[in-house]
Amino acid sequence: MNGIGSQIYDFARKLFPICRSITGAGVRKTFELINEELCASGAPELSIFEVPSGSAAFDWTVPKEWSIKEGYIENEQGERIIDFEENYLHILGYSTPVDEWVDLEELKKHIYVQEDMPDGRYHIYIDSKPFDGSLTYGELIIPGQSEKEVLLSTYICHPNMANNEVSGPSLSTFLIKHVASMENRKYTYRFVFIPETIGSITYLSRNLQVMKERTIAGFNLSCVGDNRDYSLLESKYGDTLSDRVLGNVLDFNGKYTRYDFSHRGSDERQYNAPGVDLPVVGFSRTLFTQYPEYHTSKDDMNLISAEGFEGSYRVMCDVIDVLENNAKYRVTVFCEPQLGKRGLYPTISKKGSYDAILSQRDLIAYSDGRNDLIDISERIKVPVKELIPIKEKLVANNLLEIVDE
Amino acid sequence: MNGIGSQIYDFARKLFPICRSITGAGVRKTFELINEELCASGAPELSIFEVPSGSAAFDWTVPKEWSIKEGYIENEQGERIIDFEENYLHILGYSTPVDEWVDLEELKKHIYVQEDMPDGRYHIYIDSKPFDGSLTYGELIIPGQSEKEVLLSTYICHPNMANNEVSGPSLSTFLIKHVASMENRKYTYRFVFIPETIGSITYLSRNLQVMKERTIAGFNLSCVGDNRDYSLLESKYGDTLSDRVLGNVLDFNGKYTRYDFSHRGSDERQYNAPGVDLPVVGFSRTLFTQYPEYHTSKDDMNLISAEGFEGSYRVMCDVIDVLENNAKYRVTVFCEPQLGKRGLYPTISKKGSYDAILSQRDLIAYSDGRNDLIDISERIKVPVKELIPIKEKLVANNLLEIVDE
Amino acid sequence: MNGIGSQIYDFARKLFPICRSITGAGVRKTFELINEELCASGAPELSIFEVPSGSAAFDWTVPKEWSIKEGYIENEQGERIIDFEENYLHILGYSTPVDEWVDLEELKKHIYVQEDMPDGRYHIYIDSKPFDGSLTYGELIIPGQSEKEVLLSTYICHPNMANNEVSGPSLSTFLIKHVASMENRKYTYRFVFIPETIGSITYLSRNLQVMKERTIAGFNLSCVGDNRDYSLLESKYGDTLSDRVLGNVLDFNGKYTRYDFSHRGSDERQYNAPGVDLPVVGFSRTLFTQYPEYHTSKDDMNLISAEGFEGSYRVMCDVIDVLENNAKYRVTVFCEPQLGKRGLYPTISKKGSYDAILSQRDLIAYSDGRNDLIDISERIKVPVKELIPIKEKLVANNLLEIVDE
Repeated sequence: MNGIGSQIYDFARKLFPICRSITGAGVRKTFELINEELCASGAPELSIFEVPSGSAAFDWTVPKEWSIKEGYIENEQGERIIDFEENYLHILGYSTPVDEWVDLEELKKHIYVQEDMPDGRYHIYIDSKPFDGSLTYGELIIPGQSEKEVLLSTYICHPNMANNEVSGPSLSTFLIKHVASMENRKYTYRFVFIPETIGSITYLSRNLQVMKERTIAGFNLSCVGDNRDYSLLESKYGDTLSDRVLGNVLDFNGKYTRYDFSHRGSDERQYNAPGVDLPVVGFSRTLFTQYPEYHTSKDDMNLISAEGFEGSYRVMCDVIDVLENNAKYRVTVFCEPQLGKRGLYPTISKKGSYDAILSQRDLIAYSDGRNDLIDISERIKVPVKELIPIKEKLVANNLLEIVDE
Repeated sequence: MNGIGSQIYDFARKLFPICRSITGAGVRKTFELINEELCASGAPELSIFEVPSGSAAFDWTVPKEWSIKEGYIENEQGERIIDFEENYLHILGYSTPVDEWVDLEELKKHIYVQEDMPDGRYHIYIDSKPFDGSLTYGELIIPGQSEKEVLLSTYICHPNMANNEVSGPSLSTFLIKHVASMENRKYTYRFVFIPETIGSITYLSRNLQVMKERTIAGFNLSCVGDNRDYSLLESKYGDTLSDRVLGNVLDFNGKYTRYDFSHRGSDERQYNAPGVDLPVVGFSRTLFTQYPEYHTSKDDMNLISAEGFEGSYRVMCDVIDVLENNAKYRVTVFCEPQLGKRGLYPTISKKGSYDAILSQRDLIAYSDGRNDLIDISERIKVPVKELIPIKEKLVANNLLEIVDE
Repeated sequence: MNGIGSQIYDFARKLFPICRSITGAGVRKTFELINEELCASGAPELSIFEVPSGSAAFDWTVPKEWSIKEGYIENEQGERIIDFEENYLHILGYSTPVDEWVDLEELKKHIYVQEDMPDGRYHIYIDSKPFDGSLTYGELIIPGQSEKEVLLSTYICHPNMANNEVSGPSLSTFLIKHVASMENRKYTYRFVFIPETIGSITYLSRNLQVMKERTIAGFNLSCVGDNRDYSLLESKYGDTLSDRVLGNVLDFNGKYTRYDFSHRGSDERQYNAPGVDLPVVGFSRTLFTQYPEYHTSKDDMNLISAEGFEGSYRVMCDVIDVLENNAKYRVTVFCEPQLGKRGLYPTISKKGSYDAILSQRDLIAYSDGRNDLIDISERIKVPVKELIPIKEKLVANNLLEIVDE
């Protein structure tokens, strides 16, 4: 069996060719493939919701569906110089139908053309149709011991681009499998697959209250398939648990860029909007707009890779692991505990030897009820991942207890 | 009609030759000219107050008035080597009367003399007189919709120096005209013209309670006529609305120096004194003590200029504009508003185009009731002046509302 | 009479040769010499406490006493290659008794030997004995006007090392004399002399409640006899009054190093432990572990000096002086007080002259009830020592009063 990165990449390859838009058949086909993949591994499937065109969604209205059968521009020789069949990017979503011959002058008013485009007349043909239908989204809530939720959101509306955006839904599908397989989940996990912007607005308009009550952290997954440096896109004020946990994991994971909220561009915009104010950050390899292939036809299956997915998957699994274990702890005894009698300390003290157990001593020293594991990790520059087994040994020895908040 | 800078400069030229001291005829003559200037343009005039010598003013007592008719030092040849007529700086305010011949030795005990001063006897003559009179100050309160006040304070006691200090009263006179001409003033404006130190102490002793209740921001104007870099002299802790608004305006206005409160030297000392604690900063071009002509006879009409006044006037008008518009706003809808249907957004989204409306998006994103316009300006590095029209358009579209505090 | 540094050094010389361990005769002999020294100068003496072996002390148990008569390793020629008589460091405290001939192979399992150690058989002999006895500590509480306490703690368990640690008890002995001689002590002083770690744990287990209620600042004295740069070892969060006062004194005292709590290693570990949380910092010349002679036989009487002690003594006296005088003050009048009429201000104001009384003006300006002397000192970069006489003059003139908290 291939590594997890290859599995995600292979699945992304299936999603790539589907003709997606904000609404319509492409989105539904995408959900079909996702649920097949989940079902095949015994994981729970997404529930699919259809929201009728014209429904109110806060300040917006759910748009009509849009379908397209064919679309091209041909020259006087009958050669199709652009054809929707070749690449779905060739026609902007929600373009209105047209069937006209125009001269170059007129054509230029509507699209950008190369400078050496020969003069002459061109036939513009789009066989598209807006109609009353619905907006489709997918949701899966995997319950944990607590009602408190972790949100994982991604979007399924981009046509024919690999990193932006079949990578997000592909990664999210495999994170569902991971979360479903976790024993003793502390938190509930809310996976959301939506069309960007109108989808998140629609979704929030139906779920805001419960999300505001329950969400402790949230992550918008986008552009997670390439193999370049990671990016953390901060929440509005950069100070939520989501910022802290993703920042902490990435701090110990190598080079990455921390972007402030001025770089926002995906659904973190809605999750952080005034009145919504959910603790949501963005997670990416290269952030959207920051790579040359962004929003071009070069954003294809060659831009993303098994290695890229593998890294993103590991980071998000670490994020989940840190979240599940993070808490404020308190030492149960006064002064330093006697570690020797519990087999937690070397029996002889000699020059230099105490460096080796410094993490344990530091964890104890700062477990005074004021710091969670992330605080301590940042203070002592040791990954939470290394503190977790120490914490567990101390809890097992009744030397640490969780501080209820 | 000349530019505003020239008008202020011309007015300063009228104030310059008057022989001013802490009290007395020079101060009264100054007020006469100020009120003439205000009257001529239909602006409200200063109310003039006389506080009798001997009145208590907190820990101080209002001094006697001091008048001087003549004063000089002459040598044995009858040549006047110093004459009060030439420059009022030649005799220190409140010098006691004298009429004596002394030798050089004795003379040196009282004044600094050049090293090549010839030996011999000198006739010291001062025909001055302290007497029970009063301390004079001017005040003008221009009411706004709110009782909350903005304080503008300057001092009128310095003889024969242009930047320090006919520039402050000159600028303040023209700011009165500006404020009086503003429609729908939100705030009330308190203009104060006082002798330095004893004047502000006296003024505060009669107005402290109401000023503590009402003052939201205050500015001490001094040395505002030269054409060098601007200075912001911080309040005691550098954290008041006055620091924020003047700092914000200057941040986008070019080079300036921000001095902490250790550089204080004018009436900001009294306004920030323990128990007074008003939110008052100092505004200057070059700060007093920081320019070579300071407190010398070189601080004359050549040191200040129309350009210097023009700049100071613009900065203070911007300060007032920011104060009038600054507030915390809140978006009235959840998630990002639909801007397109209100004509607030371009109809096609393409690569790069969203930079152009970023300020609007940022203003919306941070209008969650936590930030005022200055906060947002500092965060997104866009002058408040550019945010005001955007804010007004959004308010007009019912997308923004003020948060009452 | 010699300088104070020489006196402390001479006293340290008496303590150096005593064979100390965590418990036992050496510790008791040390206390005997300390009390002789205190008695000789009329200062109050330490109370000596004996805590029986086996007593509970939080998570620990007071150990048995350990005594040793003789101990060596001899080779086949009967030469003693190590002898406890020569240096007490040659046998680790609490070593169990042994009397055996072993070959080099076996010997190496127990101790580090030089590479050129000849093969052969060695006679290991230790005539030691653990037995039920007690742990000994000394305590002296010198009362002040307030029940609030300043803690001075040091340890008396290290054998045959001068800086670490006869320097701490030696300095602390002379600080007792100093505190006892102070008139009108504001605070109560708690001097503690304990064996390291188990001693502080034992001491805290018997005194924690009262210490938590009363301790406003505390200092662990260790390695205070060498003549190198000073060290401040911060409390757990580096934000207590102890950090502020010692940091402030050292800021104006020349070069020093501020170590964060990750460098802890002495009893500050217990004083800052979760649940204990006392405001205790460490004070050292070179911090333990940071000098080459640390924990070797080179840490002898040549490493420490009269100059080293003199400096440490002066710093701690300054710390006490600052603590005694530190408070938040408030000016009793509104606006700047009239200093001239009280003789607190030069009678003529001229260019530059106001720098000389700037400290007084700053002290007045910031005495608004929000800042204590340390705050003001740090803000205006003037040592508290220089502010104290100014403060006293202002208090004597009824211009300043203490703010009760």
